[in-house]
Amino acid sequence: MRNSSRGDVDPFIVMDVMQAASAAEAAGRSIVHMEVGQPGTPAPAAARDALAAALEDDALGYTVALGLPALRKRIARLYGEWYGVDLDPARVVVTPGSSGAFILAFSAFFDGGDTVALGRPGYPSYRQILRALDLKAVEIEASEANRYQLVPGDLEGVDYDGLMIASPANPTGTMLGKPALSDLIGAAQGRGATFVSDEIYHGLHYADRAVSALEVSDDVCVINSFSKYFSMTGWRVGWMVVPEANLRQVERLAQNLFICAPHAAQVAALAALDATDELEANRAVYARNRQLMLDGLPKAGFDRLAPPDGAFYVYADVSHLTDDTRAFAAEILDWAGVAVTPGLDFDPERGGGTLRFSYARATADIEEGLERLARFMADRG
Amino acid sequence: MRNSSRGDVDPFIVMDVMQAASAAEAAGRSIVHMEVGQPGTPAPAAARDALAAALEDDALGYTVALGLPALRKRIARLYGEWYGVDLDPARVVVTPGSSGAFILAFSAFFDGGDTVALGRPGYPSYRQILRALDLKAVEIEASEANRYQLVPGDLEGVDYDGLMIASPANPTGTMLGKPALSDLIGAAQGRGATFVSDEIYHGLHYADRAVSALEVSDDVCVINSFSKYFSMTGWRVGWMVVPEANLRQVERLAQNLFICAPHAAQVAALAALDATDELEANRAVYARNRQLMLDGLPKAGFDRLAPPDGAFYVYADVSHLTDDTRAFAAEILDWAGVAVTPGLDFDPERGGGTLRFSYARATADIEEGLERLARFMADRG
Repeated sequence: MRNSSRGDVDPFIVMDVMQAASAAEAAGRSIVHMEVGQPGTPAPAAARDALAAALEDDALGYTVALGLPALRKRIARLYGEWYGVDLDPARVVVTPGSSGAFILAFSAFFDGGDTVALGRPGYPSYRQILRALDLKAVEIEASEANRYQLVPGDLEGVDYDGLMIASPANPTGTMLGKPALSDLIGAAQGRGATFVSDEIYHGLHYADRAVSALEVSDDVCVINSFSKYFSMTGWRVGWMVVPEANLRQVERLAQNLFICAPHAAQVAALAALDATDELEANRAVYARNRQLMLDGLPKAGFDRLAPPDGAFYVYADVSHLTDDTRAFAAEILDWAGVAVTPGLDFDPERGGGTLRFSYARATADIEEGLERLARFMADRG
Repeated sequence: MRNSSRGDVDPFIVMDVMQAASAAEAAGRSIVHMEVGQPGTPAPAAARDALAAALEDDALGYTVALGLPALRKRIARLYGEWYGVDLDPARVVVTPGSSGAFILAFSAFFDGGDTVALGRPGYPSYRQILRALDLKAVEIEASEANRYQLVPGDLEGVDYDGLMIASPANPTGTMLGKPALSDLIGAAQGRGATFVSDEIYHGLHYADRAVSALEVSDDVCVINSFSKYFSMTGWRVGWMVVPEANLRQVERLAQNLFICAPHAAQVAALAALDATDELEANRAVYARNRQLMLDGLPKAGFDRLAPPDGAFYVYADVSHLTDDTRAFAAEILDWAGVAVTPGLDFDPERGGGTLRFSYARATADIEEGLERLARFMADRG
């Protein structure tokens, strides 16, 4: 059987780090995991309790394609709570994770050969999913001066049918304020391009809250997830908000592509939306971890950092230390027992000189990791 | 925002039936559901217990993309138990339902513009997913004489890059014996086309067991699911078996397209694989329901039936009664309070003269439904 060309996507370089970290742990070494992109916490207790109850008295068969009506209604209410936006629950589409939302959006809004503009650095699966769906990703270098976020000037002379933006971003955690977001939405809409806003790290901010594209325009596609703030990565449940005019198409595609998002995960997600105390306690841990990182990384010698407004990552320019972060990450793992992500997955061009540090785990791990990194850098001289 | 062309897929006609059935129930009427494609039973008790335990002591974060190693190993063992096939667990890919497996297979093995041959009648989402992924579905009429299954002669003169077959099939429940399956695999392989075998109804047979394409060749893609025999539709967990040479590509795509199948569902699925007593008790109910249908439908006047070897459907040719099964199904629902599926979703050409009856629910429902259908037909004269 032959392999397709479009399916020949790049491997994740971080997988090598993860495999080496696993092998080291299997051999008895202690490894601090700063490579992971997920919370160490489980789903909120209320979410687990709701599912435990449903396991007793609900067959948990297929839901309708757009998701449990109560969940769609509750998500719509979140837009009032978080952003003061009055959202019709009919526009909310529950998806199998934000991964499912990307597949759904890219197939609902773009035809084969269309071009979607992305900032670089960015989440690597954007370009891989686009490729697998016969779309062209045009990656535009976002400057360090702009905190690795695109500005309309970067898009001048670029031909694109869609523009995809993330705020807070992965790998940098930087956010777009309302004027900057409005400018980008205006640039896309000005040329008739579809604006897709990846908001999966919303809820995880450390000063001003993140701004939703829905605060700027109704004519956008917003993608969100229960994975990060709601601490439910493995549950594979997320959502999209789409304009009313696109709903029928999105619904028909969702019926065919997925049938529905996992029912058990939808039940848990509905309860997670009200688990504010537990989720805010998680966020307080991240806030403390972030401060430790912003203090500790420069002290250790990683002092070229994009200021991370949200998410749970710090992106460091280490180009003065190495031009091969793949080897450098392997050296850090081997010498210091800290797993970190080389920037190459996020930025094939400049990633040889960048690293992503995650602070999603327990504070004790972060403290230990920072000490090890400081020793490593001191030894390296 | 514009809608894509490839995303402009057909609506499911059965949705109209389901909405009308819901409306009738909301108005207080009793409706017998013979339109549904899922068991009325929940996941096996052992599966629910396993998940309840995991909710207490496992964060249920992302799994690796190919699925929990223990689950892949146990699925591989199933091939020994069911078919006497010795399968390397490395070739098993856990997916977000068979829906996820279709997306993964179609993007891993076919490039935009490639043609995949399908028998008609068949599961409507095959052609819709193919369309959404920029592939061409060529639908070939399977004859009633061949129990609505393709034979190599049907494929003569057809140009195709892939051939997709289902046994037991939806909507007919008919199966392919080993010689018939071997002939189709031989026809596809003879022209270098990829053979994809949809085996999601395996386990649900009423005389001879179903034959897996893996009993014939290792150079095929097999897709299966926990939805039907294992009674876990809403959990969205299925699997693929692929040749070793395609594994790396499938793994990279799965990482990017899905990250992983739902972790909670994988935990439940692992336990479901050993819940043989409960699952066989479910199957005994289907066997009794099937016999009731095969006795009762002809008595009621539905006597042109494809003999259903497996799954939980009976497909009836009613072209002597109507040329508009959409209206006919609406009439049956309205007059008799029985929801049935018009054949048009499965066969846009001949489906105006066919109906699909599901017998997946409790036996008492089937008995009641058959009585109502008999009264309806007697009244109709």
